[in-house]
Amino acid sequence: MVKTIKGTSDFMESLRGKNATFLLALSNTKTADIAGITQAGIAGKIYLTPTLDAEFICSGSVRSLAEVASTPKGVPTPALITRAVHLKSPYGRIELLNLGLEVEPKIDYFKLHNFGINPSNTIALGADIDAQSIFEKGLEFGQNYACKDEYIILAESVPSGTTTATATALGLGYKAEEYFSSSFKESPTSIKEEVIKLALARLTKESELFEILGKVSDNMLLFNAGFILGINNRIPIVLAGGTQMACVLLIVNSILKAMGGTMETSNLGLCTTKWVYEDRSSDITALLDMLDFPLNSFYVDFDFSLSKHPALKLYDDGEAKEGVGAGGALAYGFLHGLSKEEITKEIERLLK
Amino acid sequence: MVKTIKGTSDFMESLRGKNATFLLALSNTKTADIAGITQAGIAGKIYLTPTLDAEFICSGSVRSLAEVASTPKGVPTPALITRAVHLKSPYGRIELLNLGLEVEPKIDYFKLHNFGINPSNTIALGADIDAQSIFEKGLEFGQNYACKDEYIILAESVPSGTTTATATALGLGYKAEEYFSSSFKESPTSIKEEVIKLALARLTKESELFEILGKVSDNMLLFNAGFILGINNRIPIVLAGGTQMACVLLIVNSILKAMGGTMETSNLGLCTTKWVYEDRSSDITALLDMLDFPLNSFYVDFDFSLSKHPALKLYDDGEAKEGVGAGGALAYGFLHGLSKEEITKEIERLLK
Repeated sequence: MVKTIKGTSDFMESLRGKNATFLLALSNTKTADIAGITQAGIAGKIYLTPTLDAEFICSGSVRSLAEVASTPKGVPTPALITRAVHLKSPYGRIELLNLGLEVEPKIDYFKLHNFGINPSNTIALGADIDAQSIFEKGLEFGQNYACKDEYIILAESVPSGTTTATATALGLGYKAEEYFSSSFKESPTSIKEEVIKLALARLTKESELFEILGKVSDNMLLFNAGFILGINNRIPIVLAGGTQMACVLLIVNSILKAMGGTMETSNLGLCTTKWVYEDRSSDITALLDMLDFPLNSFYVDFDFSLSKHPALKLYDDGEAKEGVGAGGALAYGFLHGLSKEEITKEIERLLK
Repeated sequence: MVKTIKGTSDFMESLRGKNATFLLALSNTKTADIAGITQAGIAGKIYLTPTLDAEFICSGSVRSLAEVASTPKGVPTPALITRAVHLKSPYGRIELLNLGLEVEPKIDYFKLHNFGINPSNTIALGADIDAQSIFEKGLEFGQNYACKDEYIILAESVPSGTTTATATALGLGYKAEEYFSSSFKESPTSIKEEVIKLALARLTKESELFEILGKVSDNMLLFNAGFILGINNRIPIVLAGGTQMACVLLIVNSILKAMGGTMETSNLGLCTTKWVYEDRSSDITALLDMLDFPLNSFYVDFDFSLSKHPALKLYDDGEAKEGVGAGGALAYGFLHGLSKEEITKEIERLLK
């Protein structure tokens, strides 16, 4: 079941039964190379996570490494959830956005959109992104995007993306210190905080919007903000993610404010997992409350209470919460008639 | 399972697995205000039934009243069946036709087509409908209608609609006194008969077709007759209803006869419930036999034999038989692979 955080349930209800294009935004930031900052992947090969996620979502197998990415504690990537839904209630199509990958996914036949974007640097030393250029690439892509399905599910896989998202929100002046999630149960606050502190220290009070973003954000955040503005309410979009997608919206909010512009957002929604919604170390509702435009937001009432698999129970323990569009994917499954039982069984089958 | 009344099962088989647009035609006639004439709703608030049905089908909740409409005996609206199928095998989309509602449904995001039609008066005093205008609105809508799915399920919610349907068929000269169904187990024959007698007394032998219809019918019957002629076999239509939808076809039949016209009906079908098909107080087969054109007609082999819920058993007792497209909805579910068990369970879950 899909539950409403803010706005109207009619937004999601009107998408019931409709096919969606699953757009997966993939990016690397060298911020993830800082030891201990994220557990979204295999130690030393964290940079491969988006590549492997993309391969797994599309094909059911990983090709750029021997096995599916999982954390050191053995938490399997949320790509498992997204793939399980695709197997039971397929998305209309999956398309990949290469927003600066170290390694391109080894996938044929699926559309991989390339924009000539490089991985960004660690925000500890300045991300060194031409933020306006990345934003404009997203804007243009959104303006020209022809959706072959009835709506878009926009998902992401960016290791250490919550770190860059937190730095971005703070860099833009939002009072959001405590509101950001992480892939750790016990958020690695000290390393993360240190990196964010270093990132923010590079900003001056005089820094302009895109100058700030170029130092502390990542390509996914920038491109997706542009994409949303480019789509401009023309096609329904479900932002499938948690606090990182909330940060994308904060960027949109800041850009609109800086330009003195407005945007119709009736066709825009965000859907995350219950793990994010109920997370005590972050507060997605508070982040969404900071937006100056209305936004329909939701979470899926799904957990692994029907499973006995120890690796999956780690989700319920808070060891992993969101990513690769898991929340939006689960909503898609529910809106196509899947039950919690069916989805759980399919995920368990994939784990074997 | 879908069973054939007349015509070929290939019509329904060819729709197997295809997505349909569920078009719900909503209308009020003040005929329903006559005490005891219908039990399709809450006494004194019968006029709200189509509004609540629309809200429930789209959103799963009722908004214009505290609870889902049920009869004084506690029979839940067949909207429950239609919604249950939507949850398990979603329609491509739901669109609402406001054909004269007292209260607009409180629904966002779903397409509500407005035609500037007012509720009609009681046929006991003359319905006072500009029948030709309503018919032409349906015709034009059908001619211009772009279906985004592969076929249309056309359903209705019109309290006391069987009374106006009976008066219409008789007013048009069909010998159909005994063939019409009602939402009562023991049809409230005396009140209904009296109203119909009063309605027919307003007609003279010289009355022309649309003059007759303007006095004894309702907006749904007229609009849908126009819609079918407007679609003109261009898109497959499943008329999801019982004797009221049969009456729509009788109107089409009379109009064609009056104009000396013909219509290809190979893409037109009717699908009702087993409760209507097996009803002893009405005879849908006899009504369909009166048509001068061939028509594929069906009923769904579904009852509540797998349920122990007392409110649902009332359907099997004949206390409610059809409405809000229940028959067509059940067929849609079967054609998308749902079993009787799955549908029954989902309806029971909704009742909780």
